Amino acid sequence: MAQNIRHMSLLVVGTVALDSIETPFGKAERIIGGSATHFALAASFFCPDIRLVSVVGEDFPQNGLQQFARRNINTEGLQIKKGENSFFWAGRYHIDMNSRDTLDTQLNVLAGFDPIVPEASRNADFLMLGNLMPSLQRKVLQQMNQRPKLVMMDTMNFWMDTAWDDLMDMISRVDVLTINDEEARQLTKEYSLIKAARKIMQMGPRFLVIKKGENGALLFHENKLFFAPALPLEEVFDPTGAGDSFAGGFIGYLSGTNDLSFDNMKRAVIYGSAVASFCVEKFGIDRVADLHQNELDERVQEFIDLVQFDIDLV
Amino acid sequence: MAQNIRHMSLLVVGTVALDSIETPFGKAERIIGGSATHFALAASFFCPDIRLVSVVGEDFPQNGLQQFARRNINTEGLQIKKGENSFFWAGRYHIDMNSRDTLDTQLNVLAGFDPIVPEASRNADFLMLGNLMPSLQRKVLQQMNQRPKLVMMDTMNFWMDTAWDDLMDMISRVDVLTINDEEARQLTKEYSLIKAARKIMQMGPRFLVIKKGENGALLFHENKLFFAPALPLEEVFDPTGAGDSFAGGFIGYLSGTNDLSFDNMKRAVIYGSAVASFCVEKFGIDRVADLHQNELDERVQEFIDLVQFDIDLV
Repeated sequence: MAQNIRHMSLLVVGTVALDSIETPFGKAERIIGGSATHFALAASFFCPDIRLVSVVGEDFPQNGLQQFARRNINTEGLQIKKGENSFFWAGRYHIDMNSRDTLDTQLNVLAGFDPIVPEASRNADFLMLGNLMPSLQRKVLQQMNQRPKLVMMDTMNFWMDTAWDDLMDMISRVDVLTINDEEARQLTKEYSLIKAARKIMQMGPRFLVIKKGENGALLFHENKLFFAPALPLEEVFDPTGAGDSFAGGFIGYLSGTNDLSFDNMKRAVIYGSAVASFCVEKFGIDRVADLHQNELDERVQEFIDLVQFDIDLV
Repeated sequence: MAQNIRHMSLLVVGTVALDSIETPFGKAERIIGGSATHFALAASFFCPDIRLVSVVGEDFPQNGLQQFARRNINTEGLQIKKGENSFFWAGRYHIDMNSRDTLDTQLNVLAGFDPIVPEASRNADFLMLGNLMPSLQRKVLQQMNQRPKLVMMDTMNFWMDTAWDDLMDMISRVDVLTINDEEARQLTKEYSLIKAARKIMQMGPRFLVIKKGENGALLFHENKLFFAPALPLEEVFDPTGAGDSFAGGFIGYLSGTNDLSFDNMKRAVIYGSAVASFCVEKFGIDRVADLHQNELDERVQEFIDLVQFDIDLV
């Protein structure tokens, strides 16, 4: 029970970026984004002790750092590189909001990123490894004083094409892999997500989250399966960061509750989906940064109303 | 209460066809298909009194008629045209099973189809109008002695392009419209399904079911929304008829329970999804025709396990 009294700490590692985004609804120039940004902000609604490890350039706005501070996110591990620029991504979404064109990618500080976990964060209880080069993800894991209770990682098809062996090594080391449906198929050469999930769990992870964008997410564990839809919305204003907000809300909820039962994992999927449903309502972090707990609870109630039904099988 | 004692009757109108189907898993030549076939078989697990109105040619196999008889489906309204051939469709599915190419369509008896509702079926309590020319759907509705308790119709983009006014007239006359997501968008010029649903319900239907194939189905009524996923399966062997099995299971469950509350509509969506999940496991009607009630209950339990979670918002 002592563990339940002491607050669990969550270390999130990934990108903190500047994004220029075009959607059918408008444009935003050089706004704050990046996977670790969304992880940390989403998780901050559930977990009081979040440590961020990432890198930005001199061009990163003070306002960005203030957003982290407002949510009590520890940025001791956020390197700020003098005379360099932050990782920059520019993209344009199509009308269906599920497909996008990358207009520009400037790695900048990310090219030479050497993640350093501050001494005080090397005992973190939970670890979220964002979509980075697998060798960098490993470098972070190796800096921990002891293995965290739960290690979750995200990845993408790019690493399947360019760093297969490192990727397989990392996948074998984590407890939870999160990946989208197309990537799960590419990773396993299986079209059926059920078969793909079985193969991926044989690679190491005890838990697998397959993200299907506007079509929700599947949680796999042993022979158990849970599905949560994405909340149907009037408008999806900007999908950027939705998957990362989902992942951050998911591991943030697990960290805050310190309960790894499958029933609690289900709840984590719902809370992650709820935060993600806010993320897409405005550009970048604007909506989640201003989110209030009561709005989150109302949104979770919407998920309950959306999927719950009452069938009595006698 | 008298209504609850007497069995409700369900009239289903649509195609009874011969299909030749190619999937990545195999081929089947001239097997029994058609929307009304799937409606009637799926509904027969919930409703004891089903009347079928459709048309076939001399080439329709005895075995097909026997399948209906085995499920106690009344085929008095199934016209058999001497010297003519049944409606024939041939298609090939792509590996993703969501897209298919039509290889051949022969209207045959369907070209001159004049649906005649037998006198004994003109008092049917529930009516399912399959995807036919809207003027034919109206012809059926006009033959009823009184308006059924619930009229549900399916349609497709083809009628939006070729019979818009008749389609709008029919949509204004029904209680439940079932349509797929792309068609809902085409019908309303709205990309957001929430906005599209609102517009469609303004056209007349009190209830709307938007089918999203492997991504489940949405039920709309007033400001209420319910979502049911499709059950993730090891293999989707043949998707043909899944949407019609869903619709048949849905209205069959409503007919069998004679309860039009939204909570019961949710149950109908789940039972419809359960029957559809069997339909895709084999070619044509093979799986559903051999389905047992206990298998159906087990499948519904899988849906419960798939989506139910326990969050206590205090």
